[in-house]
Amino acid sequence: MEKFELTILGCGSALPTTRHFATSQVLNVREKLYMIDCGEGSQLQMRRSHLKFSHLNHVFISHLHGDHCFGLIGLISTFGLLGRTAPLHVHAPENFGSMLQSMLDFFCKGLDFNIEFHPVDTTRHTLVHEDRSVMVYSIPLRHRIACCGYLFKEKELLPHIRRDMIDFYHIPVCEINNIKNGKDWVTEDGQVIPCSRLTTPAAPARSYAYCSDTCYLPGLSSLVGGVDLLFHEATFLHEDLQRAQETFHTTALQAATLARDSHVKALCIGHFSARYEDEAVLLDEARSVFAHTILAKENLNIKI
Amino acid sequence: MEKFELTILGCGSALPTTRHFATSQVLNVREKLYMIDCGEGSQLQMRRSHLKFSHLNHVFISHLHGDHCFGLIGLISTFGLLGRTAPLHVHAPENFGSMLQSMLDFFCKGLDFNIEFHPVDTTRHTLVHEDRSVMVYSIPLRHRIACCGYLFKEKELLPHIRRDMIDFYHIPVCEINNIKNGKDWVTEDGQVIPCSRLTTPAAPARSYAYCSDTCYLPGLSSLVGGVDLLFHEATFLHEDLQRAQETFHTTALQAATLARDSHVKALCIGHFSARYEDEAVLLDEARSVFAHTILAKENLNIKI
Repeated sequence: MEKFELTILGCGSALPTTRHFATSQVLNVREKLYMIDCGEGSQLQMRRSHLKFSHLNHVFISHLHGDHCFGLIGLISTFGLLGRTAPLHVHAPENFGSMLQSMLDFFCKGLDFNIEFHPVDTTRHTLVHEDRSVMVYSIPLRHRIACCGYLFKEKELLPHIRRDMIDFYHIPVCEINNIKNGKDWVTEDGQVIPCSRLTTPAAPARSYAYCSDTCYLPGLSSLVGGVDLLFHEATFLHEDLQRAQETFHTTALQAATLARDSHVKALCIGHFSARYEDEAVLLDEARSVFAHTILAKENLNIKI
Repeated sequence: MEKFELTILGCGSALPTTRHFATSQVLNVREKLYMIDCGEGSQLQMRRSHLKFSHLNHVFISHLHGDHCFGLIGLISTFGLLGRTAPLHVHAPENFGSMLQSMLDFFCKGLDFNIEFHPVDTTRHTLVHEDRSVMVYSIPLRHRIACCGYLFKEKELLPHIRRDMIDFYHIPVCEINNIKNGKDWVTEDGQVIPCSRLTTPAAPARSYAYCSDTCYLPGLSSLVGGVDLLFHEATFLHEDLQRAQETFHTTALQAATLARDSHVKALCIGHFSARYEDEAVLLDEARSVFAHTILAKENLNIKI
């Protein structure tokens, strides 16, 4: 099966701890890498997760708190040292554009590749990026500053050719792509063999939704409903609900409630407050509502 | 003995590896912390080394390549979240001032403490900072951009009081500080007891010199001569001398030669190129010239 897998580079929250890096993740879709947020240390964590820098062409930033974006300038700087030539696309809230440009002008003179900045309207659910593998949509969130999540929808894969049928009907190789794309086969004596008999369906297209940082938004169900994996922040335990509300964060219980109500297949929680020495308490709380919950962890790889 | 010790937070060079963080160190002088360079991840590494954020009031930046300064904005941001009120002094090449201010304005609005920026003239050997514990001097270096090292000279400690002599002469407690500061004691019958008989000398003042990044500069001997510990970059093996010269870096052999010719007590080498999987080769090369060489390593603590 073609790759659609998530690697957690960092899942701590704003304050550094000995246990976590700041927020960053990489989604691998068919060997193309999509980074979501880029906290300090993300480039180091990419190395540790053995993710290839050259396969990363898109970075999506949820919001401009440092623990979600301070690693970007270092990553770009390293790409420059490595002689990168392919453009890097940065999708982020609009006001980041000029700041990023100032930092590039100061720290990264003479790059051999372009940084293409794509402003994201965090207040709307819109298509942010599309290529042959995925469609990426923004998910409006509510945090102390402009913030959005990202929804990755894999594009339908072509069906698999049935080698036995191809051999049986002596179908030439040059026809295979046509058949995959839906063309029926007509034998020499005029018999029509429907393409569905010559192929087996591809695995269903997969989807991943990333929601961090945000207060609890039950309405997100309509956007993330049924995804294969939902990452949702769970900064606090529900006993710290007041603190969660004050800081526009979510509790583990709330994240799990959203997962349950959205009928997602699995939930991964992260963005843990530094106050919890052992995050198993967050996992336990979430699982009490939604069993298919996993705890984010640095360098964890989740096959979707 | 009062503390004078160095903690290595990161000793890699520009390209990230799974083995090293970017350059940063902390010198602890009598429980005051002085940070030298602040590469990405320095705040995390401070946590891991159990160094107290609140004891850090001065950061010295050698030059403005990212692997020596990209961690500063994250560190400052964290100080803000922790409610710091004490000013933080940043000593760095002059042109960093306006860039730092732009980043602060964008990412760190409403800090409850001041960032005091002190431009450093990297072309001159001058006093950069002085307090009750240390004098800090710049050390002009030669790199691809403006760059200087830093020389830390501990101030003389007061001598130790000899408790037995104080008791013998019935000297009141209120006189102890005067005696430590050089006043003799006169007994009731007029006998003068020289303060040197009432005290034992303090340990000699210590010194630490940091030199990174730079090409080999034999002339540095006059500035770092006799220091207790010299940190010097040793990015390359001497067999890669040409690459070292092109990039304005130093080989392990050259660093050790400088240490030997400067009659320093010990040498610590760091800023290792990512090309060496096992840095023991750098250590071996340096020790062939200067035996008292140690290899920098993340979270290594060196008591000087």
